[in-house]
Parts: sequence; C-alpha cells; structure tokens
Amino acid sequence: MAVNSPIPLAADIKPVAGIALGFAEAGIKKPNRKDLLVMALAPTATVAGVFTTNRFCAAPVQVCKAHLESLHMAAGPIRALVVNTGNANAGTGDAGLAAANATCAALAELLQCEPAQILPFSTGVILEPLPIERLVAGLPAAISNLKEDNWFAAAEAIMTTDTQPKAASSSVTINGIRVNMTGISKGAGMIKPNMATMLGYLALDAKVSQAVLDHLVKQAADKSFNCITIDGDTSTNDSFMLIATGASALEINDIDTPEYQALSETVIALAQKLAHMIIRDGEGATKFISIVVEQGRDVEECRKIAYSIAHSPLVKTAFFASDPNLGRILAAIGYAGVNDLDVSKLNMYLDDVWVAKNGGRNPDYREEDGQRVMQQSEITIRVILARGEASTTVWTCDLSHEYVSINADYRS
Amino acid sequence: MAVNSPIPLAADIKPVAGIALGFAEAGIKKPNRKDLLVMALAPTATVAGVFTTNRFCAAPVQVCKAHLESLHMAAGPIRALVVNTGNANAGTGDAGLAAANATCAALAELLQCEPAQILPFSTGVILEPLPIERLVAGLPAAISNLKEDNWFAAAEAIMTTDTQPKAASSSVTINGIRVNMTGISKGAGMIKPNMATMLGYLALDAKVSQAVLDHLVKQAADKSFNCITIDGDTSTNDSFMLIATGASALEINDIDTPEYQALSETVIALAQKLAHMIIRDGEGATKFISIVVEQGRDVEECRKIAYSIAHSPLVKTAFFASDPNLGRILAAIGYAGVNDLDVSKLNMYLDDVWVAKNGGRNPDYREEDGQRVMQQSEITIRVILARGEASTTVWTCDLSHEYVSINADYRS
Repeated sequence: MAVNSPIPLAADIKPVAGIALGFAEAGIKKPNRKDLLVMALAPTATVAGVFTTNRFCAAPVQVCKAHLESLHMAAGPIRALVVNTGNANAGTGDAGLAAANATCAALAELLQCEPAQILPFSTGVILEPLPIERLVAGLPAAISNLKEDNWFAAAEAIMTTDTQPKAASSSVTINGIRVNMTGISKGAGMIKPNMATMLGYLALDAKVSQAVLDHLVKQAADKSFNCITIDGDTSTNDSFMLIATGASALEINDIDTPEYQALSETVIALAQKLAHMIIRDGEGATKFISIVVEQGRDVEECRKIAYSIAHSPLVKTAFFASDPNLGRILAAIGYAGVNDLDVSKLNMYLDDVWVAKNGGRNPDYREEDGQRVMQQSEITIRVILARGEASTTVWTCDLSHEYVSINADYRS
Repeated sequence: MAVNSPIPLAADIKPVAGIALGFAEAGIKKPNRKDLLVMALAPTATVAGVFTTNRFCAAPVQVCKAHLESLHMAAGPIRALVVNTGNANAGTGDAGLAAANATCAALAELLQCEPAQILPFSTGVILEPLPIERLVAGLPAAISNLKEDNWFAAAEAIMTTDTQPKAASSSVTINGIRVNMTGISKGAGMIKPNMATMLGYLALDAKVSQAVLDHLVKQAADKSFNCITIDGDTSTNDSFMLIATGASALEINDIDTPEYQALSETVIALAQKLAHMIIRDGEGATKFISIVVEQGRDVEECRKIAYSIAHSPLVKTAFFASDPNLGRILAAIGYAGVNDLDVSKLNMYLDDVWVAKNGGRNPDYREEDGQRVMQQSEITIRVILARGEASTTVWTCDLSHEYVSINADYRS
C-alpha cells in the first residue's frame, strides 16, 4: 500500500499526440504479466535522457547513450523506446551488449527504421542473462496494440516490486497553445537515483529543440528523481527520458524565454509528482518523509546531510516505529562528512515541533509533541545549519519489516 | 544469538596487573542492571584513545579529549575511567558538558585525585539529559567492589542492545617477560566506527611510553574497529582506549623495535577479536561477512567499495535470505564513487566460487554453487579490481527482521 498515493484512475492519464504505446506479455521472467513495452514516436519527436552514474551501468543504458550520441551525429531521429521488466541486463558483459543491440535490431526491422533509432531499457534482476528470444518474440504483439491512449497499461507494464502503477498527466497553456504531457515511472527498491531514477518517461506534445530538451531533462531530474532515496542503492539501470513529440504548434528553441519558463515549471512539477509516487510506493514504506536542510554554505553540504539522515537505518526504523528517538537524526547529521560543521548553531524541527536548539535538546521540547508528529504518515524534518544561504530537499521513506521481507524474497 | 561467537567463559578473561574494575547498578535508565563501571589505574599507567569523528560528538568524548590533552601538559596521569550505559549524554549541549564534568569531579573526590585525571564515557540514547544524580550516587558502590579480576562483569556492565558480553584476553612474551592483556567492547547498532568503536577498552601490563601508546592505539583501531560496520551509522560516542598499566618489567619507548612489533601484533589481533565480536553480535545478525577488496589503486578506493557493499540494504537482505542475488553486490560496487573504475576488468568471488569474470557473469558460475555458500554463517566476498596493489578488509553482518524489530523497539 503506497503512502497516501491512491492508484491513479486510468481516465485521468491523458494521451499525448505523437506517441503511441503498446505492451505484451513476453514471459521474460514470469508468465501472464505485462513485461514488454514499446513507445513509438512521431518523426518530429526529440528525445533527451539522463542515466545512472553506476559504473556497472547496464548494457541497454550503454546502448541508449550510444544511440543518443549518434542522434546528435544526424543518424535520424529516435523512433521508438522499448522496455522490458524481469531482467536488468546488467553485469552481463559482452553478451548483454549483444542482447541489447539485438533488441534494437529486431524492433527496427518491425518498424522499418535503423537500430540506432531505437532506445532499449531493462529492469529486473542483475547478473542474469537476458532471455532475448522471448523478448524478440513478444515485440509483434506489443506493436499490434500501439495506441496513444495506452499510458496506464504502459505504467503497469514497467512495474517490478511496485505495488501500483505510477502515472500522471498535466498541461500548460503557452501563447494560447495547450501543451499536454504525461509521464510514467517505476521503482520501489534500489532507489537512490544519481542522474535519474530507475525508469521514468515523460512525453509532451510541443516541439522542443534538442538543445533545450537536453537542458530541461537535467533540470527536471535534478529537482525530482535526483532528490529521492529509498535505500541508498543507486541502480545499474536508472534512466529518465523526456520526449517532445512535436505534434502541437508550440515550438521552443531557447531556454531564456517565458515559454521555456512556463514549460519547465510544469515538467518539473510533473517529474516531482512521479518521483514522489516512487517514494510513496517504496518497498515496505509506511511514511513519506521530506528532509529539508537550510542555511548551508552550499547545496552539496545540504545534500550530504539530507542523504545521511535519509539513509540511516536507525532513523528509518525509528520512523517506522513512530518513535521520536530523534537523537538518531543528530547522529546522522554529525557523521555526514561536513567536517567543519559547528553543531552548537544547529536547530532542528519535526514539522512544527522545535526539537534541537543550538545543538542540544530544546528545553521546551516535550516528548509528547515529538510523538504526535511521528504518528503522522507525512513528516518533514527541517535542519537549519545557520552558516549560509543554500538549501535542499530530499524525499525518502521509512524502513519496515516489509522492506526486509520484500528484499529477502525478491527473486523467489 | 551472536554468529559463531559463544559467550566468553569468565575464567578465560584474565586480570591485568595495575588495573582494577568495579561496577554498580545505578538505575540510570532501568533498575536492576549493571550500568556503571569504574576502571582504576595504577599511577604508572599510560592511556591513549581514539574517538568518534561524528560532529555531534558526545559531551564525555569532548571531556576525554580535553583531559588527555591536559595530560600531555603534565596535569598528572589518568587515574580512572568511568562508563555509564542507558544514556549517551550526546546532543545535550552545555548541560551535557556540565554533567560529564560533574561525573569526573565526583569520582576524583572519591579517589582523591584531580577531575582532569578522570576519563568519562557514556552510551545509550542520544538527546536525553543524563541523570547525573543517579550516576554520582552509584559511584561509591562501584568503587567498593574494585577488583583486578572483574573484567567479565565489566564487559556486562557496558552492554546496551548487545546480547552478550564481549571480552577476550591474550598474552605475548617479549624479552622473556610475559605481557598480559585483556580487552572488552560493546556495541551492536549505530556501528560504523570512524576512528574507534562504540566502546572498547584494552589494557596491558607493560610500561609503554605515551608517544608509543598514542601510535599503537591508532594503528590497532585502524586495523580492527575502523574496519567494521553494522548499519553505517557512526555513533556520537565511539571511543577505543588503550591502557598500559606499567605493572610489568617490560618497557617500550620506541616503535622501531622488535619489542614494539611483537606487542603491536598481539594488541591488533586482540582488538580485531573484540571488533569481530561486535559484528557477530550485530543487531539481528545471522551472518558474519568479510569483504575483501584487492588490487585497488589505494586503500581509500578499496574502502569505498567495501563499505558500499557492506552498507547496501539490498546486499544485506539478500545475505539474510541466503539468496545468491549477487548482482546487487555489483550494483553496490558500481555506485561506490570510484568514478574511473573499469568494471570490465573486475572479478568477484564468493568464498571459492568465481561469480563475476571481467565485469560480467562468469559463464561457469552455477546458481547452486552460489546457493551453497550463501547458506553458510560465515562468508567472504572477494572483489578484485585489477588496477593496483592496495587492499582492505571490512567486516559486517546481514540485515534481518530482527534488526528492524530491535531498532523499532529500542527505547520502549
């Protein structure tokens, strides 16, 4: 059960002109579940992505990067994205690269384009060979049901340990032209994106130049997927893709314009919504926790402290227990690696409750106030460093028995 | 139940001439348990310590550092150490410092020495006021039972969530003189020492100069307590103290001697044993895991990778489940922050099983071989980076339901 995040209504997830989605049950790991997704793009579409910084980056991520690179060398626009679940095709060496390339070749033949115009994605277990025959055999079925109105099914098709599909739509009117956008994401464990999230796709129907889209995808990732963590494990397959189909009349070629400002705000808000859905559906999550670190010297040190809190198993289990054992938060701040931090100036709040004052327990703090906030399902930890102007926010969840159960049983 | 680590026999824990130990039930947090320990030293003793790098370092740690500093300024030798459990006296601001100083003053009066000759230590919950009256009231009882043969009871007196006392003895004969040494340690959660462990005390009866002891305590900590982690949470109170009582005829004043070599090897081995006891009794631990990273460019990058594996909740839950989901180890290596790591040269073994070859799954790897090793209670992960001569070893445990239970319930 995701934290305060009901399953989206399929009717609320809107099509985006210029992108059609088709799925199949390819039996990649288990039978009778959607595990293959094809997203086919209009020839006017531009595509930009950010990918995991994990050195064991998966074979499909390597192929995606190469194909986006060749795109810049005018090999032709990206025509389709293909995603399989059930296998990450990571830690698979040369055989894995061959399998990712074979996926592109097979889909290119069906769509009558070049393999370099296909972007492949995989998610699932690492270190196991991709069953490429089953994947390729599933492609015709996926293509046969390509529809613009298939976003909800697409969100279902990319789920792994997710308990529910993650999808949202939004729109913004710029210069009198309505821009529609829809995004989907997946991920519930191995979530501490570093450049992107496990898998996220966001499409909009304006025409956006490649340079602008490259800028926007980084900006949106940095303010959404790059600010979440479930377990601190940066996956081998993280990818966040932004697609502008070019189907609407609006054209954006410059970031220094009010049009870009309006578009980017809407895209970032939608990306944040999708990122929050991942945390709300974090493996075993019972709490949605926002960690705000303020008045730091720079964003880097604010992020160090926020992630130190977010990754502490002791902090996370205290939240699971609704136990205001808040000294654990101070300990996590203290070992975050900000070596010249003067803790005697530090203040900490739990929602509206002032817990730590000038580095020690606030004399007015009462256990029952901490207890009251800890029992909520949504909690904000606010840490005030009092040494600068920088701030950041990171979103995370608690660590429960269910997390251990899920990850002790994942492959079985 | 600690992993392959039976409760030491009290008879195996030997006295060390020149140090007497006394305990009391001071009721600091709960009644009817040993929670106060005094260690009284011969006037010939030298003492050296290493302490947590946590910026929220506890009040007693700050006082210890100041007293060891004044020792160098010839304020007189350290005459006693005092340890309370049930309260960490951390995150307690000026009131906490006053309480730590009051502890020293009270004990100094009873022992007829200066407060600066006392070293105070605390362990327990953070952010709560130390009940100084109860602590001071317990001191006379602790002093009344000071005995050289009280090490086992002392190990019991410093336990918190530990399921069993941690103590070990050793000896080494140097120049025909037998040096006896005994150490105790505690800690089962909030364990990722950075300079030292939660609490560790090791005493020997040779006469060792302050400069040599300062060197040895760092060397021993770096090879033992600084190589263990349970949950990645560096505590506010970590302290490892090395005491040379000077009661035997052996005198060591130079590290460039065979005598120092013989002594340091024995001390390091004993410190490692005490550190391993902490991991074996890690909160909820069912497995003892050694992580060896070899052929790195420097120790720093080997440690980054070893800790990345050791802290991954996904790796730890897979070990708990005895599930050879070993791709999770590759993912943890990949996000460890060694940014120029060429994974195509990397090899990984699980005990004798060659799992990953040149960055991918070893074609000869069989799931049943991985399964066999995963079912053991002691497992070695060996990662070969093939880019240099440096190596390191880190010891950790798995992440079980019991860990979540213990830390969700710790204060209740």
